[in-house]
Amino acid sequence: MQGKGLDGKTIILRVELDARSVGFGAAAAAIEAAGGDMIAIDVIQTGRDRTVRDLTVKIGDSASTERISQSLSAVPGVKLVNVSDRTFLLHLGGKITIQPKTPIQNRDDLSRVYTPEVARVCTAIHEDPSKAFTLTIKRNTVAVVSDGSAVLGLGNIGPYAAMPVMEGKAMLFKQFADVDAFPICLDTQDTEAIIAAVKGIAPGFGGINLEDISAPRCFEIEQRLRDELDIPVFHDDQHGTAVVLYAGLLNALKLTGRTLATAKIVVCGIGAAGTACTKMLLAGGARNIVGIDRVGILTVDKSYANPMWQWYAEHTNPQRLSGGLTEAIAGADVFIGVSAGGILTRAHVTSMANDPIVFAMANPEPEIRPELIEDIVGVFATGRSDYPNQINNVLCFPGIFRGALDCRATVINEQMKLAAAEAIASVIGEDELSRMYIIPSVFNSRIVEEVRRRVIEAAQSSGVARRQPRE
Amino acid sequence: MQGKGLDGKTIILRVELDARSVGFGAAAAAIEAAGGDMIAIDVIQTGRDRTVRDLTVKIGDSASTERISQSLSAVPGVKLVNVSDRTFLLHLGGKITIQPKTPIQNRDDLSRVYTPEVARVCTAIHEDPSKAFTLTIKRNTVAVVSDGSAVLGLGNIGPYAAMPVMEGKAMLFKQFADVDAFPICLDTQDTEAIIAAVKGIAPGFGGINLEDISAPRCFEIEQRLRDELDIPVFHDDQHGTAVVLYAGLLNALKLTGRTLATAKIVVCGIGAAGTACTKMLLAGGARNIVGIDRVGILTVDKSYANPMWQWYAEHTNPQRLSGGLTEAIAGADVFIGVSAGGILTRAHVTSMANDPIVFAMANPEPEIRPELIEDIVGVFATGRSDYPNQINNVLCFPGIFRGALDCRATVINEQMKLAAAEAIASVIGEDELSRMYIIPSVFNSRIVEEVRRRVIEAAQSSGVARRQPRE
Repeated sequence: MQGKGLDGKTIILRVELDARSVGFGAAAAAIEAAGGDMIAIDVIQTGRDRTVRDLTVKIGDSASTERISQSLSAVPGVKLVNVSDRTFLLHLGGKITIQPKTPIQNRDDLSRVYTPEVARVCTAIHEDPSKAFTLTIKRNTVAVVSDGSAVLGLGNIGPYAAMPVMEGKAMLFKQFADVDAFPICLDTQDTEAIIAAVKGIAPGFGGINLEDISAPRCFEIEQRLRDELDIPVFHDDQHGTAVVLYAGLLNALKLTGRTLATAKIVVCGIGAAGTACTKMLLAGGARNIVGIDRVGILTVDKSYANPMWQWYAEHTNPQRLSGGLTEAIAGADVFIGVSAGGILTRAHVTSMANDPIVFAMANPEPEIRPELIEDIVGVFATGRSDYPNQINNVLCFPGIFRGALDCRATVINEQMKLAAAEAIASVIGEDELSRMYIIPSVFNSRIVEEVRRRVIEAAQSSGVARRQPRE
Repeated sequence: MQGKGLDGKTIILRVELDARSVGFGAAAAAIEAAGGDMIAIDVIQTGRDRTVRDLTVKIGDSASTERISQSLSAVPGVKLVNVSDRTFLLHLGGKITIQPKTPIQNRDDLSRVYTPEVARVCTAIHEDPSKAFTLTIKRNTVAVVSDGSAVLGLGNIGPYAAMPVMEGKAMLFKQFADVDAFPICLDTQDTEAIIAAVKGIAPGFGGINLEDISAPRCFEIEQRLRDELDIPVFHDDQHGTAVVLYAGLLNALKLTGRTLATAKIVVCGIGAAGTACTKMLLAGGARNIVGIDRVGILTVDKSYANPMWQWYAEHTNPQRLSGGLTEAIAGADVFIGVSAGGILTRAHVTSMANDPIVFAMANPEPEIRPELIEDIVGVFATGRSDYPNQINNVLCFPGIFRGALDCRATVINEQMKLAAAEAIASVIGEDELSRMYIIPSVFNSRIVEEVRRRVIEAAQSSGVARRQPRE
């Protein structure tokens, strides 16, 4: 991935030149010799002895960042300070900014947004705390909270390194649903400390999006916060994935003439996402789900130290299957993988029912590559953007929070999640639906509005909405 | 204050009209009869039976919000839903917003600011955590943290009601110094819980501005956070006030031909602000400071249960004065009040040295009104914007954090605070300095840059800067 992001693109080389021993022409020649095309020069600092310049270089197909860097570093008197590509440049200084909604141009403005007039607004909220929803940012603001323990596929990289993901998520919230989201990366991985910190900061927020917190802590953290806060708490890795998967599955079942109630569904990888997907499938009416993890098929005939697996065994596998993946998948209608790359074989898929549905969502490498089974699979989906049918959380979280905030929901419950999934599935019309197009693009402009509308309806009919939004 | 903010201004009346029983003309007539001038009408909702409209009304001198409201409510079929004035309208939905720095327009943008490309940025920070300062919002972001226990003059109104003040502060940070500041109002007033929460959220921030936390908890909270975090922690109620007061005092001493080392200074009100001011005065070279609170003059000859008072008694009052305000103030050069409105009399001021300096900073009512002593006082300052020489924290916190962030200071130390005060004092040139102008306006555009420059110099010379900023 390092190479993929850099080559065939534009990079910026910051170089320090010894003004006494090197001419700028020598540096430029070294770049050209290595296949780079210098398209801009910015002088950063100049002095008698040394100058610092940023060189913007287009990299040709035959060249690479490494070659150009080496060629340049070999010139005497040239010191390569650093190399940035566009991705890194987009991250300089962070990706979000906090802006006043109105400018403070004079003392009259100052006295209204700050002392002394602000005291009247404070008093109004003190007398009626529900006014925090109209008179503060709580109305439209979500905290994106992580402890950095399970970030993307990178694992436990900690709160500092997790920030770029949470900032990115904040950008998506704003861009897709006009939700103000602020990243909070916590310097603790202790369950109680995380719960206390999130409860502590909650007054200014209208919702909490938990993100990239490892299992099993994520379950207790989410459950406790749901119980103890009166604003929605949503662990996106569990429920966002589950909602979008469910949406895709609804369309895949329709296309292949199946129903959720009768389909045999194998879920491979019973962690946070696998459990959340299963709970949604059960809530939606699925009856024949078989879970499998590294201990084999989860069955009520065994007992498990892992409480998640124990729960799973007690609520799934009605036929008490036992064995491994081969035994689980024989005759199955649907395979849902949230496990590890490459564990599914063509033979496995051949043993499934005719026209099988395979959702291979391991990241970045799916459980099986589509090219290995394209002639025998019915519907295929992954978590990747470079194959059709991407199961992408971005389809869910902006709209579901937009709806929850607009009706001031106290929680995001199962009904709202099912409604969100149905909304996402419905965005693809009957005439558009095909095996290569079961799930809409994240850039489809109808998604957020449709998810919002159905989520608000579900919140109202399930009694968790505190406000009737105006259209 | 309620009346002051409303009358002689513009209000917006939201009315619900019963379409069957009332014509709009009757409502308009009622407003005019009560002295209001309707200048705009916005239709919010219409239906067969009822309509909702927002009426923007200018209030004449002879009218009042109450009269207009009553007159309108008396019309049969009119229901007054609510009345907003401009201050409340400015607070609707909160005063700040979170914006992406770049738009996400296509899949290429998405893949850079979010998965998969963001993983490279995360990895770079994981390998070198100091890169959090360049690749995340940490570089420019400050948390404005309060527990709502001592908000303005309103007291312990809690975290929800404190939000408008913290949002206002975030606006000022951005407007005056381009610092991204985010309000965090904590749902706890327990010292340890506050410390844990702030330490928990610290990774994403480059500094912590504590605000409106009551004494004595504010001392321990600040001290512990300073010791345990590697970013600046600054309790603005203490140090912001102290810096600006010190700046004003520097100019007042100059104007009246005194020096800090020889002046007798009485500090009235030994709470958080009084203690912080005294520490700065001592750091600046003051030797003859006498503190007084409701127990009388603080002296080493007594012992105090309040540890702040005990510290104070041990570090001030070299002549071991005893008694009350009358004994303390006799012959004093400077009176600094951070206590309660109206406690200072003309007789007290008469007993001071010739050409006395009186800083009466109690809010909203100063220790003495300037009109009572204008013929005998040398220099007079308050915390109010409607008298000359306002001691206003807004002069300090934007610039001091701008400087601290730009040089990546690990703390804001005494040297940086003294430098900030000298910067603020220096903005008024020798030729401009007068008894009515010892402290610049918050809208003086030179302040932030001057404070920033001197704070960076002080951070560097005291060894707490981690970066040499480019100009």
